[in-house]
Amino acid sequence: MKPNSNLNHHILTNAHPPISSSSSSPSPYPGKHINQLSAIGNSTNIHWHSCSVEKDDRQKLLDQKGCVIWITGLSGSGKSTMACALNRILHQRGKLSYVLDGDNVRHGLNKDLGFKAEDREVAKLFADAGVICIASLISPYRRDRDACRALLPNGDFIEVFMDVPLHICESRDPKGLYKLARAGKIKGIDDPYESPINSEIVLKHGEPCASPSEMAEKVVVYLEKKGYLEA
Amino acid sequence: MKPNSNLNHHILTNAHPPISSSSSSPSPYPGKHINQLSAIGNSTNIHWHSCSVEKDDRQKLLDQKGCVIWITGLSGSGKSTMACALNRILHQRGKLSYVLDGDNVRHGLNKDLGFKAEDREVAKLFADAGVICIASLISPYRRDRDACRALLPNGDFIEVFMDVPLHICESRDPKGLYKLARAGKIKGIDDPYESPINSEIVLKHGEPCASPSEMAEKVVVYLEKKGYLEA
Repeated sequence: MKPNSNLNHHILTNAHPPISSSSSSPSPYPGKHINQLSAIGNSTNIHWHSCSVEKDDRQKLLDQKGCVIWITGLSGSGKSTMACALNRILHQRGKLSYVLDGDNVRHGLNKDLGFKAEDREVAKLFADAGVICIASLISPYRRDRDACRALLPNGDFIEVFMDVPLHICESRDPKGLYKLARAGKIKGIDDPYESPINSEIVLKHGEPCASPSEMAEKVVVYLEKKGYLEA
Repeated sequence: MKPNSNLNHHILTNAHPPISSSSSSPSPYPGKHINQLSAIGNSTNIHWHSCSVEKDDRQKLLDQKGCVIWITGLSGSGKSTMACALNRILHQRGKLSYVLDGDNVRHGLNKDLGFKAEDREVAKLFADAGVICIASLISPYRRDRDACRALLPNGDFIEVFMDVPLHICESRDPKGLYKLARAGKIKGIDDPYESPINSEIVLKHGEPCASPSEMAEKVVVYLEKKGYLEA
């Protein structure tokens, strides 16, 4: 072992005096799997690992499971309205959720370079923090949405497809994008929107119980059924 | 008013049926300032605003205030160890904190372009979510740290300076960076580290009570004094 490693180990050991004694007493981290720690064996990093607070610990604190609810659909399909309604219901139930949307996700100079990749990373961090992250972001391409799914543990990426016909979205045109596009002032609106194939939840326009609040309730029922509203 | 605005307003109104009735009953959001909402006047956005869950609501739920604790110092000054110890103490006190560090903040292709700007944005989002965000990131330049401070509400950026002499850091060299630099294999370690001038907290090497746990306790005492450990 190199001297540097010894020094580092020394620092780590000093950092966490309660850990060595806690191994024979009830763990302060009930979510920690002792077997998992043991698997690290005699690594000098064991003190480091056992001191840290993991996702499971945060989830127990919040009594929920961190995940990403990715709301996808055309402009005007009601993504923001759904995000807001869902956020409200979850908060009323004492759950911590946070909406990522165009209003708070900004990337300055990198905006055009890779904002989708960054959005995915941010959503993933929130889920890891134990938060129910509601992403309401422009995501017309299947590969982009699937890339976020691939970043997350199985089941923790919940795709919600706002299935609304284009002519309805265009008649709403909340941001005036369709009008600008028809006037030739912006590009990209002709890009095909790639409808999801295997969304966890599809919220179809014109079906019974399709008000935003009722649609948000459907998502809450899904979360409850899958165990995300408890630790 | 344009037809599009009417449509949008209609959608928003439908989205939040409980709001109109809640104006005369106790608010489901005790943190919401009614005066603030009134100030919006007769804007068609009033339903939208009053439905949303704000930072203050999340803080009440968590019984804490979102903020960014930005730990700065040379490589080997103990940033990660401090972040870990602080995270542990806060969790034991039932507070939700989350560490942003080189292990979970990755930016793929944008890494070299502007990762500092993105880190700031992510830290800001976490604070807005009500989380006590502990950032343990390479931040040698004063202007970069001050840029994060400028993004946040007054007081919510708490800079913690790990004031450790270079020769101590080099003797620890936990990542082997100094060794690589002396061997000419990496660049940048000669860049001057710009010590903070007005850090909220300075943790000086060699002072009494300077173990990582004791230093983390100092930060907790600061947070408590400033009201961040209650809503």
